[in-house]
Amino acid sequence: MPSFRVRAAGHAYPVVVERGIVASAARYLPDKAGKVFVVSTEDVWRHKGEVLARAFDGRPHEVLFLPGTEEQKRLAPLEALAEEMVERGGDRSSVVVAFGGGIVNDMAGFLAAIFMRGIPVVQAPTTLLAQVDASIGGKTAVNLRNGKNLIGSFHPPAAVLIDPAVLDTLPDREFRSGLWEIVKAGIIRETELFAYLAEHCAGVLARRPEAVDRIVAESVRMKVEVVSADEREGGLRRILNFGHTFGHALETETAYKRLVHGEAVAFGMRAATWLGEKAGYCPSPEAQRIHELIRLYGPIPPLDGISADRLASLLVHDKKTLQGRVHFVLPVKVGEVTVVSDVDPALVREAIVFALS
Amino acid sequence: MPSFRVRAAGHAYPVVVERGIVASAARYLPDKAGKVFVVSTEDVWRHKGEVLARAFDGRPHEVLFLPGTEEQKRLAPLEALAEEMVERGGDRSSVVVAFGGGIVNDMAGFLAAIFMRGIPVVQAPTTLLAQVDASIGGKTAVNLRNGKNLIGSFHPPAAVLIDPAVLDTLPDREFRSGLWEIVKAGIIRETELFAYLAEHCAGVLARRPEAVDRIVAESVRMKVEVVSADEREGGLRRILNFGHTFGHALETETAYKRLVHGEAVAFGMRAATWLGEKAGYCPSPEAQRIHELIRLYGPIPPLDGISADRLASLLVHDKKTLQGRVHFVLPVKVGEVTVVSDVDPALVREAIVFALS
Repeated sequence: MPSFRVRAAGHAYPVVVERGIVASAARYLPDKAGKVFVVSTEDVWRHKGEVLARAFDGRPHEVLFLPGTEEQKRLAPLEALAEEMVERGGDRSSVVVAFGGGIVNDMAGFLAAIFMRGIPVVQAPTTLLAQVDASIGGKTAVNLRNGKNLIGSFHPPAAVLIDPAVLDTLPDREFRSGLWEIVKAGIIRETELFAYLAEHCAGVLARRPEAVDRIVAESVRMKVEVVSADEREGGLRRILNFGHTFGHALETETAYKRLVHGEAVAFGMRAATWLGEKAGYCPSPEAQRIHELIRLYGPIPPLDGISADRLASLLVHDKKTLQGRVHFVLPVKVGEVTVVSDVDPALVREAIVFALS
Repeated sequence: MPSFRVRAAGHAYPVVVERGIVASAARYLPDKAGKVFVVSTEDVWRHKGEVLARAFDGRPHEVLFLPGTEEQKRLAPLEALAEEMVERGGDRSSVVVAFGGGIVNDMAGFLAAIFMRGIPVVQAPTTLLAQVDASIGGKTAVNLRNGKNLIGSFHPPAAVLIDPAVLDTLPDREFRSGLWEIVKAGIIRETELFAYLAEHCAGVLARRPEAVDRIVAESVRMKVEVVSADEREGGLRRILNFGHTFGHALETETAYKRLVHGEAVAFGMRAATWLGEKAGYCPSPEAQRIHELIRLYGPIPPLDGISADRLASLLVHDKKTLQGRVHFVLPVKVGEVTVVSDVDPALVREAIVFALS
């Protein structure tokens, strides 16, 4: 299985995609690492903790639990965890190992970023979504009352260990949530992946190992390339936000309760594709191909009762907003997107109405 | 007046010591800065806000207030401020201007470090302590329930504006608190400053401008040099902790209420100097010269009722502790210190008993 390497200004780290790699986690700790603090959720630990616990057998380690819900992705539980680390002998030589989905990834990564002004973190993501997205690139964050991921740090991990074997017990809706980010990778940059997804939908949804391993590795490679080229989101990295501006607004409006992240992104990709076509950036046949792939991996849950006007006003509070201007990532064709900031607000509202329908 | 420049890996920033520089604060904002969020305390703003408000006249700015107490130097008030920034239109182009003492410096700096994963901060310190210490070097932090400054970031400022004119209304105890860090600079590295402080104590305590300007500029230069050589505290920067390991333990034990920071550092310098002599690192005549300078700028408030045993056990929880080893910065002679980790615990306890007496 493949191993990639993020190379950015001042640092580099390995991203390994390999069945069973979790069992070798101790090999990826930094030299002179002190106590290991595994941060997980009780649920993930019950199902998958044994392999990781064995990996750290014979060296000092502690296991700490986070709530693991979007409502609790806040500073207060992080502070409680930091105080627990201090009580259990955490110091500047300690290392955090994040073992869970995207919320654990973001929170444990941020905990490592700010504990004693920064200690290393090894990311060991246990959901498909976290494996292909959150675990790569060093973004960490928690939510504020009035917006998602508004508090956080760039804190590049010491290593990312992506083990497709841990996905076997993932609930179907969680698995599909991750697939939406893989679909996104196909749309924004990877035409071969796009074609593979279109041809092998049944195998992918049945989680055949050869299909899962292939699309995970391709998505991870794409993200590693983009992040290596542009870690701080000055340029290229912004293409990864395809579907996310609209998606974040929908997640905020539904209080992160009605949809999983991938579903919100799928909604956002539908809106952005419609907008790309109507605003004149994407020819209709290309937009139709994109809409078809999204349909193939659907359905998105029904979105009745959600106000297009409220979603439109929430867009302005997205943290990608710069001095009042909302930036949209819009398709140009399959495998290519563009970033646009001067879109007619009436058209934006219509795109939301379309995607809600 | 002098202007220095911190030069560290990947970044550099100006540190300007100049009477009246606060009035020119707008000149030091980054290019393309959006909305300015001044973070201050109500007290500082009432006494000194007018000049800064005028400096930002005609450009979008907001003023936010922090509690400004050590007990409230926590994540919760920071979170409230971040939510207020979002409500008032803060985005990734926003800039924080920290206008206050060390607590404002550390909290506003940390707020800037984590708001939307990092926006610039301009430090405009209003206490002597913050001018010669906290504002330079990019350290930001808040306290945990079980320890001081255990959560934070390295977030180098965009600029540091040190205006001795704002010190004119500083209460005497606050002014003297800052003097202890200047005394520290003399002991650890600056023999000329040490001699000046010994000879001009009356002028310094009377806050004669020529004396204040000179010792501020010399202390700032020393800190700029040390931080430029070692931003992340791998080596040289650790000398700045002289007096701080013992001092932090005392602050924790007295819940940050009984002493101001400089007084705790003065206690710590007494303990470290005694320890340096008794552990054989510092000849007695040199230790006596150091004790005399500390006495000259005293007295330290009485420390009756404080347990040496409790202080000794608190040392282990200092965040400078590495894998259970406490590091002490001990004098070798005036102008030179050394970092030591294998000190006899019984001698450490005796040093505390000496400094408490």
